[in-house]
Amino acid sequence: MHIRIINPNTTASMTAAMHQAAQHQAATSTTVTATQPDAGPVSIESHFDEAISAVGVAEEVLKGEREGNIDAYVVACFGDPGLLAARELTRAPVIGIAEAAFHLATLVSTRFSIVTTLGRTGIIAEHLLEQYGFRHHCRRIRAAEIPVLDLEHHPDAAFKRIVEECCRARDEDGIGAIVLGCGGMAGLTAEISREVGLPVIEGVSAALKLAESLVSLGLHTSKHGDLDYPRPKAFTGTFSELSNLHFPLTR
Amino acid sequence: MHIRIINPNTTASMTAAMHQAAQHQAATSTTVTATQPDAGPVSIESHFDEAISAVGVAEEVLKGEREGNIDAYVVACFGDPGLLAARELTRAPVIGIAEAAFHLATLVSTRFSIVTTLGRTGIIAEHLLEQYGFRHHCRRIRAAEIPVLDLEHHPDAAFKRIVEECCRARDEDGIGAIVLGCGGMAGLTAEISREVGLPVIEGVSAALKLAESLVSLGLHTSKHGDLDYPRPKAFTGTFSELSNLHFPLTR
Amino acid sequence: MHIRIINPNTTASMTAAMHQAAQHQAATSTTVTATQPDAGPVSIESHFDEAISAVGVAEEVLKGEREGNIDAYVVACFGDPGLLAARELTRAPVIGIAEAAFHLATLVSTRFSIVTTLGRTGIIAEHLLEQYGFRHHCRRIRAAEIPVLDLEHHPDAAFKRIVEECCRARDEDGIGAIVLGCGGMAGLTAEISREVGLPVIEGVSAALKLAESLVSLGLHTSKHGDLDYPRPKAFTGTFSELSNLHFPLTR
Amino acid sequence: MHIRIINPNTTASMTAAMHQAAQHQAATSTTVTATQPDAGPVSIESHFDEAISAVGVAEEVLKGEREGNIDAYVVACFGDPGLLAARELTRAPVIGIAEAAFHLATLVSTRFSIVTTLGRTGIIAEHLLEQYGFRHHCRRIRAAEIPVLDLEHHPDAAFKRIVEECCRARDEDGIGAIVLGCGGMAGLTAEISREVGLPVIEGVSAALKLAESLVSLGLHTSKHGDLDYPRPKAFTGTFSELSNLHFPLTR
Amino acid sequence: MHIRIINPNTTASMTAAMHQAAQHQAATSTTVTATQPDAGPVSIESHFDEAISAVGVAEEVLKGEREGNIDAYVVACFGDPGLLAARELTRAPVIGIAEAAFHLATLVSTRFSIVTTLGRTGIIAEHLLEQYGFRHHCRRIRAAEIPVLDLEHHPDAAFKRIVEECCRARDEDGIGAIVLGCGGMAGLTAEISREVGLPVIEGVSAALKLAESLVSLGLHTSKHGDLDYPRPKAFTGTFSELSNLHFPLTR
Amino acid sequence: MHIRIINPNTTASMTAAMHQAAQHQAATSTTVTATQPDAGPVSIESHFDEAISAVGVAEEVLKGEREGNIDAYVVACFGDPGLLAARELTRAPVIGIAEAAFHLATLVSTRFSIVTTLGRTGIIAEHLLEQYGFRHHCRRIRAAEIPVLDLEHHPDAAFKRIVEECCRARDEDGIGAIVLGCGGMAGLTAEISREVGLPVIEGVSAALKLAESLVSLGLHTSKHGDLDYPRPKAFTGTFSELSNLHFPLTR
Repeated sequence: MHIRIINPNTTASMTAAMHQAAQHQAATSTTVTATQPDAGPVSIESHFDEAISAVGVAEEVLKGEREGNIDAYVVACFGDPGLLAARELTRAPVIGIAEAAFHLATLVSTRFSIVTTLGRTGIIAEHLLEQYGFRHHCRRIRAAEIPVLDLEHHPDAAFKRIVEECCRARDEDGIGAIVLGCGGMAGLTAEISREVGLPVIEGVSAALKLAESLVSLGLHTSKHGDLDYPRPKAFTGTFSELSNLHFPLTR
Repeated sequence: MHIRIINPNTTASMTAAMHQAAQHQAATSTTVTATQPDAGPVSIESHFDEAISAVGVAEEVLKGEREGNIDAYVVACFGDPGLLAARELTRAPVIGIAEAAFHLATLVSTRFSIVTTLGRTGIIAEHLLEQYGFRHHCRRIRAAEIPVLDLEHHPDAAFKRIVEECCRARDEDGIGAIVLGCGGMAGLTAEISREVGLPVIEGVSAALKLAESLVSLGLHTSKHGDLDYPRPKAFTGTFSELSNLHFPLTR
Repeated sequence: MHIRIINPNTTASMTAAMHQAAQHQAATSTTVTATQPDAGPVSIESHFDEAISAVGVAEEVLKGEREGNIDAYVVACFGDPGLLAARELTRAPVIGIAEAAFHLATLVSTRFSIVTTLGRTGIIAEHLLEQYGFRHHCRRIRAAEIPVLDLEHHPDAAFKRIVEECCRARDEDGIGAIVLGCGGMAGLTAEISREVGLPVIEGVSAALKLAESLVSLGLHTSKHGDLDYPRPKAFTGTFSELSNLHFPLTR
Repeated sequence: MHIRIINPNTTASMTAAMHQAAQHQAATSTTVTATQPDAGPVSIESHFDEAISAVGVAEEVLKGEREGNIDAYVVACFGDPGLLAARELTRAPVIGIAEAAFHLATLVSTRFSIVTTLGRTGIIAEHLLEQYGFRHHCRRIRAAEIPVLDLEHHPDAAFKRIVEECCRARDEDGIGAIVLGCGGMAGLTAEISREVGLPVIEGVSAALKLAESLVSLGLHTSKHGDLDYPRPKAFTGTFSELSNLHFPLTR
Repeated sequence: MHIRIINPNTTASMTAAMHQAAQHQAATSTTVTATQPDAGPVSIESHFDEAISAVGVAEEVLKGEREGNIDAYVVACFGDPGLLAARELTRAPVIGIAEAAFHLATLVSTRFSIVTTLGRTGIIAEHLLEQYGFRHHCRRIRAAEIPVLDLEHHPDAAFKRIVEECCRARDEDGIGAIVLGCGGMAGLTAEISREVGLPVIEGVSAALKLAESLVSLGLHTSKHGDLDYPRPKAFTGTFSELSNLHFPLTR
Repeated sequence: MHIRIINPNTTASMTAAMHQAAQHQAATSTTVTATQPDAGPVSIESHFDEAISAVGVAEEVLKGEREGNIDAYVVACFGDPGLLAARELTRAPVIGIAEAAFHLATLVSTRFSIVTTLGRTGIIAEHLLEQYGFRHHCRRIRAAEIPVLDLEHHPDAAFKRIVEECCRARDEDGIGAIVLGCGGMAGLTAEISREVGLPVIEGVSAALKLAESLVSLGLHTSKHGDLDYPRPKAFTGTFSELSNLHFPLTR
């Protein structure tokens, strides 16, 4: 089984860290590869960053489909950018790390809180909770107020801030579990969990396991109805290479 | 990894069928065992049946905890009877087959329908959809109007009725996937899926994979807050053996 | 008119206290009897306790049906354990004390808070609020953090804690009424209300009056659709006495 | 105990019919009186009719308060016109017949449908269901498409149409009970129920019993917070008599 | 284009202030007139005040319809009293200032808070948010706890209190915009906005622009379905002038 | 006032048609310009098309900001692609045509239906309804099942299909208004409305008027909180021109 992690931002070190976190959790029979778009933001901290990154996500899925041996994809940014677009492009399962973390959190607790990087991205999580159905399972969205790349550049200070906020969530929110709201925290999960003493769910590994699960079960993204392959059509300008795609690409 | 399937009803042939379905999907490194309560209804088709069966579910978890080598439990009846009670009794993950099927259905489609056995159990599914957050992801709950045990006794007629209803769901409901609303349908999934041409999600195998996922990730049922072990106390009469349980039982 | 209070736990003194509270409120033409299961937990403070107690509730309804002269039942534990199962077993109305308190609270105020015993049971109330439709009418669920039986064993300290929490609810929550979240508080209602100066709604008496109301109106539990009598079937083991019940039992 | 039925429309024969229906259901110790505004619409079939009638409701409550011996009020039009305004004017409980019917319907069934007079009033019921929390308990709002006064002038034809629609609700909606969506149907409840074979809930008698219940329990409309007595102030023109009311009026 | 502002209370100075605020914002081609009921409360601070004022609103719309040259109406009290009734009486658009402010607030921010006069009116706003669909867009309803007429009589103190509360909303609520919860604040908007540094939305001008928009677009209040003209019928007593209205009045 | 219509697809004839529709409705003092991305899909009929088009929307807003004289933007595709991203890039109001149509529809009716092009895009509208709060105001999403460009290439057949579906909505859905679910229908609105006899709301003109309204009122996109300008950062590859943008661009 081959699972492709797509880091929607273009910071290679973050791709590597998430690759490692995923590989660490993968079944022995699973091959995990990781990639990132050729073009896009180095971190995703706004709707704008997210919109740009969604193109990269779609293009990485198209690349993967042309490679032809990928069984599932993980979209490894907590806003799940381009998730439904990606699902349209392939029969393979595509899992977002936010949705993955939410799903698993509800299986080990009745209510959870999210601890994310910047407060301004809270609304993205809030919209996802609404769309996915988990609005009432999440008690609170908390921000450590650290830029995403501080997780790379100032890991110790970032870790400290995240743990502080997780402890507040544990003590004040009436929850049973914490969801980490950034793919860049993937490598810290075990340590945070140890400090906080609660189940701490991180999306990259959660998504990997859900992807493995779906592949094992032979479940593919539905091509009946609204996730069907996009109708072939013309794209103009720098996107003209997307014109007249005939799906499935690898057939 | 050792996963225990608990069939909440007491029909051994159904336990065996679900055991087989689960084993068929389990990772090679996973041991799957299956069990059923000593006492309870032979099938679960009402709130009453479900209430009685929840006791059996709890007792099977207690047995499992005393065995001491079980990593996760699956509650294998579509109403998820006794699920939260079971979670209180153990640090191991406990997954219901209804929740498992709902979760996976939302990962491969935007909207799904449920095809269940008897119409009267639809309200049970409806309440679960509300509690879990999937009310708007489920377009319709459909019933084949066959008693649960007909799946054992009249499999061909039952299969035909289920496929008919699945086809109606596919053609009329505006969905991308179908959730099978009874553990007893576990063995039929592949064949139904072939007839209907949609992703068909069945809860036993779905729950098995979610259980494997949580165990792999080291995620346990939260003991912080409302799923903490029950406080030890006296139980009277035929339930006196439940008195003063000190958790974790195996420590 | 004969109304049967079923205390889902097995503490006789609590049954007696709730019996007295109900009798105090009953119409002169109403006979109130009270009972408790032969087997089960002495108090209900978890999903596990609740699951076990639901069996006792069902069995007490079956007993009542065999007696043949009971016009309505009250399930007198704030989690409404086994309520829908109980409704299936009889044409008589069956009222839970949580639902009763919620209904009446919305008739005398626009928003209410709940003051319950242990924080861990808050999630049970929360799920009921969702299922019944009152999520937005309840501003907050507060816990006095006293075990249920302290209401019996340390009544003064318990009363003090409850009043404190009620006063906080009154002053901080923006509410018009308080719902007491435990049947064991039934005897304290008048006194609490006096201390707090708000309408304080307690479920046992609330349920009694709703039961009287339904009986007076000739309204019975619907036997059309999903609350119909359970289909007769085999039960095994210690539950074999439940096999092949033909409803209504008293016909 | 003295309960005052306020018919928000000005058709005396309808007041009499509802009075009779209420009296028929009242406890022997309950005195039921009925009244109607001096001014207002002869029937209520639109938001406009309802807005005008709310003034009459408020004035009737003020009259009642000046009489000084009324223990509870029933607002006997299915749109519950002026209900929250009425509650502000008195410590006595005030019950609307729509809310009353909804509450009781959820106690004897899991899901209900409404059968009302004109389709155009469906939106009024829909808004009430949302506000009260019962949106998901009501499967469908059906209209017999008969003007309200036809219940008085063409009772047989009206009865026939209502029963037809109730039967459709029973057969098509997946429900356990029917709520009659007009106070004018109060006298027909028993007969409709007999024809349809389901619990049929009518609001006037439902509200009467809820009012009796609250009075028995000593529960009054909360004067803490948003249902407190209105602040005394000037009213101009034909409403100048409402100026500087000091509540409670009867003290 | 002729837009009529209806002040539902009877304080002429407030009508004048709102008229001025509206005129200030109107297109040059728009004529704005303002009126107030002949009879009713001098301010609206309760459900009771609101119920009385709704009659005045309806009567002002009827007057406007008889004048025959009015293109749209604004109901200028934050509870939107009588809004749906008013819509029934005319094909012209009718806009409430609460709804107008909510709509525009969601166009410039993802989440907003309301700052209103008295805390007791918060429930009115809450019910409107629910009915209109904006419950989750509003983070908090805050009250400056000043009576409405203090906006006229003690403008400086009132302004200070409102700004204080707006600043708290800005700093504590996680919002992007503030909705002013009283028509009487219309004249203060610019100044408050300057103090607070956030988009501050006030309903009178918001409603004016929405009304202009609908008229420009040729959109009228739907007469198909539940906002159709009321059926002509008899009204009694002081409301007898409303009898047998045939709509449209001006045709 | 200068309002810029951004057609998110790259079909110039559709840009022109929407430009014309907008200009037709604009105030005389409003300058309307229209544009389309240099690169992207010729029509938007899937999540994938939408994801690609969002980049074009963002780039067109950046262009507009550099031009420096644009007062508001309209995103003229019914899925509102890139709307929140666009809002981050500017203080000017940015209005989506789906949201605009929904808002105005609720002002002239209590319930509406949507008639869109392809059924597969219904889920996009459904997600927007949920996010914006209008889920319960929309009775049904209907599709004429015509590709978007058929509106250009086969206008007569497309018109006929749309009118047919609108008539069904009018006759079957219990609605008061219809929302047209594609910017490409902008030119047909008046004619459709005439055929159907209901208020028909089309988003381009609706958004134009809302944009004019916000500009008139001096309301800008909030820069406090989650719609603040994106943090400057590096973008790589073909998106490198987006690196280190300092907002506001034109200052």
